[in-house]
Amino acid sequence: MMTPLRVALLGLGNVGAGVAKLLLEQPDRLALRAGRPIELRHVIVRDLKKPRPVPLPPGLASDDYRRVVSDREVDVAIELIGGVTPTFEIFQELLDSGKDVVTANKALLCERGAALFARARSLGRTIAFEGAVAGGIPIIACINQSMTANQITGIEAILNGTSNFILTEMLARDRPYPQILKEAQRLGYAEANPAMDVDGTDAAQKLGLLVQLAFGTKVPLTSFTREGIDTLELADLKYAAELGYTVKLLAVAKLVDGQLEMHVQPTLVHRDRPLAQCGGAFNMIALDGDAVGKTVLSGAGAGQMPAASAVVADLIDMASGRAALTFPRIDVWNARPPLPVQRPEDVANRYYLRFNVQDRPHVFADIADILGRNGISLASIIQHEAPEDESRESIVPLVVMTHRTTYGRLVAADHELDQLDSLLPPRIRMPVAD
Amino acid sequence: MMTPLRVALLGLGNVGAGVAKLLLEQPDRLALRAGRPIELRHVIVRDLKKPRPVPLPPGLASDDYRRVVSDREVDVAIELIGGVTPTFEIFQELLDSGKDVVTANKALLCERGAALFARARSLGRTIAFEGAVAGGIPIIACINQSMTANQITGIEAILNGTSNFILTEMLARDRPYPQILKEAQRLGYAEANPAMDVDGTDAAQKLGLLVQLAFGTKVPLTSFTREGIDTLELADLKYAAELGYTVKLLAVAKLVDGQLEMHVQPTLVHRDRPLAQCGGAFNMIALDGDAVGKTVLSGAGAGQMPAASAVVADLIDMASGRAALTFPRIDVWNARPPLPVQRPEDVANRYYLRFNVQDRPHVFADIADILGRNGISLASIIQHEAPEDESRESIVPLVVMTHRTTYGRLVAADHELDQLDSLLPPRIRMPVAD
Repeated sequence: MMTPLRVALLGLGNVGAGVAKLLLEQPDRLALRAGRPIELRHVIVRDLKKPRPVPLPPGLASDDYRRVVSDREVDVAIELIGGVTPTFEIFQELLDSGKDVVTANKALLCERGAALFARARSLGRTIAFEGAVAGGIPIIACINQSMTANQITGIEAILNGTSNFILTEMLARDRPYPQILKEAQRLGYAEANPAMDVDGTDAAQKLGLLVQLAFGTKVPLTSFTREGIDTLELADLKYAAELGYTVKLLAVAKLVDGQLEMHVQPTLVHRDRPLAQCGGAFNMIALDGDAVGKTVLSGAGAGQMPAASAVVADLIDMASGRAALTFPRIDVWNARPPLPVQRPEDVANRYYLRFNVQDRPHVFADIADILGRNGISLASIIQHEAPEDESRESIVPLVVMTHRTTYGRLVAADHELDQLDSLLPPRIRMPVAD
Repeated sequence: MMTPLRVALLGLGNVGAGVAKLLLEQPDRLALRAGRPIELRHVIVRDLKKPRPVPLPPGLASDDYRRVVSDREVDVAIELIGGVTPTFEIFQELLDSGKDVVTANKALLCERGAALFARARSLGRTIAFEGAVAGGIPIIACINQSMTANQITGIEAILNGTSNFILTEMLARDRPYPQILKEAQRLGYAEANPAMDVDGTDAAQKLGLLVQLAFGTKVPLTSFTREGIDTLELADLKYAAELGYTVKLLAVAKLVDGQLEMHVQPTLVHRDRPLAQCGGAFNMIALDGDAVGKTVLSGAGAGQMPAASAVVADLIDMASGRAALTFPRIDVWNARPPLPVQRPEDVANRYYLRFNVQDRPHVFADIADILGRNGISLASIIQHEAPEDESRESIVPLVVMTHRTTYGRLVAADHELDQLDSLLPPRIRMPVAD
């Protein structure tokens, strides 16, 4: 049992450096828990001249991943290169050359995971990917191992720390999105190009991966509603708070009458719910299982050492032999027919709506009439007094919370509302989590 | 791989019935995730005539556990008998006869776990016990597998659902302990004899087990402070709320300067912290790891199906072979020297203190003087106006929050405070979680 697990690390960015740190600084701890030493044999970097935050033993670093592919002694490759191209091809070469692979590359698994999983399976190889979703939170192990007695019936999650940080700060500091984004970039909570984080893509990729594991169904990113926080106005966060809710970028997947309700959207969450209380750059995932009920996990969804903790846990699972037993039985091989995804127009929720109306007689009656005729009934309304009249007719926000209705009805009502010349853009619409 | 895992269930109480239900009603789901069928061969009950909530196939039930011991075909015994005697002896017989054992018996593992673990190990057998702590929350897997890259540095947890339910309801419904306890018993949240739940024993047993796994150190129940909620007064929950805190029965174990700070006590938790927001019969566990940071898990800590979910997850781990790889490497075998437990008098915290004082001049000055001379400084004070004078001198509560100090200093001050004839019992003292 004392044969070491021989490991190659591909990519020495932020998370890669964290993994190298754990492997080099904690060999005894890891050996004890793995049942054998874990030996780092190669570190593949793009630019050998770049200074590194972790001092590497001589001879370890190289800029040629083929050194790993051709080293028959390497048992496990840790893919922390990131991106889809050329990583997909490298990943395949690693599998083909007999390496098991640990990865935290959620974008790759989202786009090409099915192909990689199938290839690994046909080769008798193992892929482990705890670090790909929600960093240090053990959500993959929870679904693939701890909740195996259950049919998971629902996932509600905050999966993007950048968005959550920005939403928390906008409200706490009473500043609009662009200002807080800049600050988040300065503090390292948002990247120079934050598009994937703030437009909902990152959360949607992660949700897609969780759905694949929990429901055995691969859902393309284009088949469900995906909205980000990048167009949110501070005013709506404040109205939501006034109504008792916190706005979160919520990733939702639920079994509803044999279909999968699935969406990533800014969503109102009642302030008493744990998901509303998850602030800052943290992640939280609430799972519903048909036996266990609701189980909630939260923690650091990103960051060097939390992600490295997940990657090294996978490595220890590889070393102990557990990963090879888990991978062939994850629910993507369940051979059940894939679940149909509910059409966006059929998704039923309560909704938060904000209209900008000209402060004229009958405007509210007109709106309520249109909503009512489309089967949308109102649960509560906020209309504050109009600001003192200036030169022009004043514009006032009208906020309503609907009772449960479908997205399709809202769209139908929208076409009629378009005819009202007393309504000015934008019109805001967010679902309310039950 | 299609050899079934042959299973015997010992005990058909609440959780046992839940396990039987999953095994009998979900064979396909479980076989898919286990990689092979799970076959229930025996169900051992105390009284064969008692009506059962789960219809058992004929021939399965027996009142003699020796049927399991002598059946060489049984791979795994599920011990849900409960209690320590004669369960310990039965457990040993099961191991000796070559069975792996799944258990949810926290009291047994707390009292005799070391002996059972060692015996299983020497026999090459496996024990799995996810259900023994916090029901459906996968805390054992989290420590033993997901956080293996970390040294766990702290555990703060709500581990007793009965106590948490009672505390939540006392404050929400403005009723004293005895009334809410009665109601909890009526609703099934508290047992007819609730002593172990409300006096802190149950939470202390669970904490002891978590400490064994997280720190490789077995701590006897008698070596750390253990207080329950059974003597708490509603007034203190209200004063705590006024100060911005919620009182929780908190189980704490932390690494402090190479020692283990460990206690189970009613504790003030700031209302913004997740632990303060865990209400009702739920459990929550916050783990600190030196790589991952803080990770929080919450969910149903007890109940038929949540506990059954954990037991069956263990069974699937047994069937897949994972459990046999995990058990030999849990941190109880770490061969590190056991951590010394901090002496109770050295435990440092902020403290909540309530005195009942006679409303006379100088009383407050006397108290503050004694506290000050013992190195206890005050952070905040609540003293409401005394009620209108009745015939006798009025008694008013004086509530103070101290700065960080040690329990030893409080005890020293207590001796001096005993001399003040203007102080009346009780004197209340609770730590404040940082």
